[in-house]
Amino acid sequence: METGKLRAVKIIIIIINVVFNFFFLLCLYLDFTQESQTREAFRQAVVNTLERRLFYIPSFKIYGGVTGLYDYGPPGCAVKANILAFWRKHFVLEENMLEVDCPCVTPEIVLKASGHVDKFTDLMVKDEKAGTCYRADHLLKDFCKDELEKGPNLSAEKAAELRHVLNVLDNLSMEELSAKIKEYGITAPDTKNTLSDPYPFNLMFQTSIGPSGSSPGYLRPETAQGIFVNFKDLYYYNGNKLPFAAAQIGQAFRNEISPRQGLLRVREFTLAEIEHFVDPEDKAHLSRLRFRQHLANEMAHYAADCWDAEIESSYGWIECVGIADRSAYDLHAHADKSGVPLVAYEKFPEPREIEVSPPSIPQFTKLVIAPVKRSWVLLSKAMGEKEAMEMKTTLEAMGEAELHVCTLDKVVTIKNNMVAISKEKKKEHQRVFTPSVIEPSFGIGRIIYCLYEHSFYTRPSKDGDEQLNVFRFPPLLAPIKCTVFPLVQNQQYEEVAKQISKSLTAFGISYKIDITGASIGKRYARTDELGVPFAITVDSTSSVTVRERDSKQQIRVNVDEVASLVKSVTDGVSTWPDLLRTYPIHSS
Amino acid sequence: METGKLRAVKIIIIIINVVFNFFFLLCLYLDFTQESQTREAFRQAVVNTLERRLFYIPSFKIYGGVTGLYDYGPPGCAVKANILAFWRKHFVLEENMLEVDCPCVTPEIVLKASGHVDKFTDLMVKDEKAGTCYRADHLLKDFCKDELEKGPNLSAEKAAELRHVLNVLDNLSMEELSAKIKEYGITAPDTKNTLSDPYPFNLMFQTSIGPSGSSPGYLRPETAQGIFVNFKDLYYYNGNKLPFAAAQIGQAFRNEISPRQGLLRVREFTLAEIEHFVDPEDKAHLSRLRFRQHLANEMAHYAADCWDAEIESSYGWIECVGIADRSAYDLHAHADKSGVPLVAYEKFPEPREIEVSPPSIPQFTKLVIAPVKRSWVLLSKAMGEKEAMEMKTTLEAMGEAELHVCTLDKVVTIKNNMVAISKEKKKEHQRVFTPSVIEPSFGIGRIIYCLYEHSFYTRPSKDGDEQLNVFRFPPLLAPIKCTVFPLVQNQQYEEVAKQISKSLTAFGISYKIDITGASIGKRYARTDELGVPFAITVDSTSSVTVRERDSKQQIRVNVDEVASLVKSVTDGVSTWPDLLRTYPIHSS
Repeated sequence: METGKLRAVKIIIIIINVVFNFFFLLCLYLDFTQESQTREAFRQAVVNTLERRLFYIPSFKIYGGVTGLYDYGPPGCAVKANILAFWRKHFVLEENMLEVDCPCVTPEIVLKASGHVDKFTDLMVKDEKAGTCYRADHLLKDFCKDELEKGPNLSAEKAAELRHVLNVLDNLSMEELSAKIKEYGITAPDTKNTLSDPYPFNLMFQTSIGPSGSSPGYLRPETAQGIFVNFKDLYYYNGNKLPFAAAQIGQAFRNEISPRQGLLRVREFTLAEIEHFVDPEDKAHLSRLRFRQHLANEMAHYAADCWDAEIESSYGWIECVGIADRSAYDLHAHADKSGVPLVAYEKFPEPREIEVSPPSIPQFTKLVIAPVKRSWVLLSKAMGEKEAMEMKTTLEAMGEAELHVCTLDKVVTIKNNMVAISKEKKKEHQRVFTPSVIEPSFGIGRIIYCLYEHSFYTRPSKDGDEQLNVFRFPPLLAPIKCTVFPLVQNQQYEEVAKQISKSLTAFGISYKIDITGASIGKRYARTDELGVPFAITVDSTSSVTVRERDSKQQIRVNVDEVASLVKSVTDGVSTWPDLLRTYPIHSS
Repeated sequence: METGKLRAVKIIIIIINVVFNFFFLLCLYLDFTQESQTREAFRQAVVNTLERRLFYIPSFKIYGGVTGLYDYGPPGCAVKANILAFWRKHFVLEENMLEVDCPCVTPEIVLKASGHVDKFTDLMVKDEKAGTCYRADHLLKDFCKDELEKGPNLSAEKAAELRHVLNVLDNLSMEELSAKIKEYGITAPDTKNTLSDPYPFNLMFQTSIGPSGSSPGYLRPETAQGIFVNFKDLYYYNGNKLPFAAAQIGQAFRNEISPRQGLLRVREFTLAEIEHFVDPEDKAHLSRLRFRQHLANEMAHYAADCWDAEIESSYGWIECVGIADRSAYDLHAHADKSGVPLVAYEKFPEPREIEVSPPSIPQFTKLVIAPVKRSWVLLSKAMGEKEAMEMKTTLEAMGEAELHVCTLDKVVTIKNNMVAISKEKKKEHQRVFTPSVIEPSFGIGRIIYCLYEHSFYTRPSKDGDEQLNVFRFPPLLAPIKCTVFPLVQNQQYEEVAKQISKSLTAFGISYKIDITGASIGKRYARTDELGVPFAITVDSTSSVTVRERDSKQQIRVNVDEVASLVKSVTDGVSTWPDLLRTYPIHSS
């Protein structure tokens, strides 16, 4: 249906606007700084800092870790909580979405219906002796890249072929992949042993629900299915009206064959997914979203090639939000498998006259199949609109037609004067249809990682003999909003520091207090590396200085004002330039 | 160590204070109302309302559901988010806890070390023909209760015995359970088939990590292990200082044999756990927690019999927080299995002279075991302090002693003049020890369910012919903070309603707008049942009325003030009685 498709495209464009608006707000303060460094060196610097300051930790590290599993340490947890709170505010609250929270453990029948049991696979090859598993496309990709890097020894023809393989890699069938691996003689990278033929490996973690062992289940590979199976209740909750959107934040699991790319390709991750349920034929609610269309002009061109929202990182452009037009696929699948209709209703203002099929053929029923109980029901079931119309044509042309009556297992002859076949006009009061679904799905872990890279920079220390790390997190997202430093170790200053801490807690502002005797420069550097945007230094009992992380500018503020000032600039009610205009500048 | 134990008890008492303070704040507005109803009828009324208004939904309902799995619908999600935000503020932020976020998927080695692989079991019996599984203790409990209910036919002796069994049920061994089931002739409740002997069933969901099938894993049964394996990094993050507390909120999984009690006994649930790492010999940080000791007098008596924080519900008293003194069990277990020391250090202000064992016996080493390489090391390893001191006594009394030298596999005779056994004095600069752990663990789902029961009441409708349901949620926890109702369908009022909605969104206040033509009484009733504390009714273009849910009192407020007023009373900055004093009362 062309109008349905066109409509989906329009909705996707609007959603892309909203998503980019979200990133625009997140990234306002961000600027990608990789100037004089290679991407690898830059990434190493970021990752070292992240791991040393416990933004993340390889899970189960003391046992050697598990590939593809990471913990968030204290500052990482705070950043994640900030992003999720902002996401909830930006999408769920501002757009009145219906949030749900479903279990990770999912029975097989649900994921069988959704197609994941049969189709959620990657192609795998096995080292035939060692048993190690590899992703078939990864090995082919690595081989082609390595060959191309060897450079001069390659013929132009060969190079062109390898580049072609890299371009079409994602579209190769199992047979084509197998053929290429054989043709190039690719072996297991660690042992050089021969490899098995590629075969599909299901990426879902399997488990068993209950004690009997007879109820297989999986850890959900996406949160979306939990929303789809609740469609009926959510539609009711929304007053039986379309459009509406449902959202879910939660863990998803994919048992990757060989995870790479650090924090970007993991086996367990937080997804934030939205399912927009819309009537494919109704344009009315465009106006409900239009208030977000301020970027519409620029956005149209993204829509053409940019169904995914991508962010640039040291790994290149990576998908952080996938916007999928799932049409009615999932609702149809679950309705078929569960037997529960998952449909929406459009009540007409006035009943409409509609031609319905199959045609009503009362004389026909009476005359021919009178001996058979429930006869015309059976007949009308057996005979669709197309067959009935064919019979009508035959009757009109030949004067009679043959009909196989299955309940009698007998062919009977129908004469023209026995029946009257015509489409019946019926009054209908409503339209019943399966809603279309448009889904923006956010990979929260990836968004957090990109935030880290985009926020990271280094600058020389005061004496210039080392490079200091800084995360320039916007205050909204910073894991810790400010620090409190008594300038020197002294009871009076510590009392003031305690008083300020108490006010910060009352305002709900996270802070770090450091009463060690370390030099103030050292204490600033320690917390710059955690991305703390403001530092309060207690250097008198009546007023303190507040330092901004990136500009290193300082202002002087009264002790009893400072907590509310930090709150206002953290909440975005005021900005650092505002404060510079209001408070005396302090030069140390 | 008596001081260690005493110390743990003291810390637990303090933590119980903090936990009860948390509930006190949550429950301030609550009052358990079951007056004239049976518990079962009351529960049915609550659960019906919860399910009809989508506070929760049986998971995968269209497929018939899965026992022990529930979804949170939109208002349930909002309540959960509110409780978690409050929990984070009350514990993590105010007590500067280190939050972590670890995966649910956990490799076997971790849960083997923690003892869960071997010991996290319930005793199960199987219907020998049908294969259905039951918890052995449940069947015995049901049997005893049923017998006791039969009443008059029972001898006093028999009744006493059954009551005794019910009392000791939790302490019965596998053999004792088996014997009782046989003695009473208990059969499968559904089929009356004979039952298997009880056997342990592990309650963890099992899965496999990675594609090879050779790395077994489990879904974590508690979040605590993720904290323990990170102890070393968290201790470092805390500046290598004790005490500190780490916290984690996340999903936990228990594959219950036959879940009962609706929302209270589920297979997947949100836990909020805290691990306090403390030095068992140091009392210094008691003062850090003392600011929460304002309930200390009342609390002491709970500490005696109330290690678990329990809440009364229609199911009786149920555990919502478990406070466990885990001592050094987990850290020892993970250190042993991983080989990574998980210890804390106490630096002495000045080096201390300490008698160390085993004693140094240099002459002894030289004279007797000179032929053996690394001899004295082996000797001192073979001989503990006790043995060395026994040898010293023997030598002093007898003039000689026998010694088996294992590396020579030979017994040698040691003479008094060959050796000098004495304890050596060493200067030590620090003490190395394994911290003790005190853990308060919150079952968030249970707390939410109790909140529902405690908040629920019914009251007659205006015309008295039906009972209306109300949830008296405190504004802080209410899923939706206010409603906006234009009194009649009219464009001017709808404009005002939109303007108010916009201000509410800007303040981050969740609301529901209802522009249906339903009577205002009906609209109030609909949202009372969702626990919405305030209703704004637009009945003019300059001012509106605000109605409080429980008192049904109304005040009149200017249109441009109303959003900030709702925010102040939702945030707890002002209370409804404050508003009654400030704004004119409206009587409809």
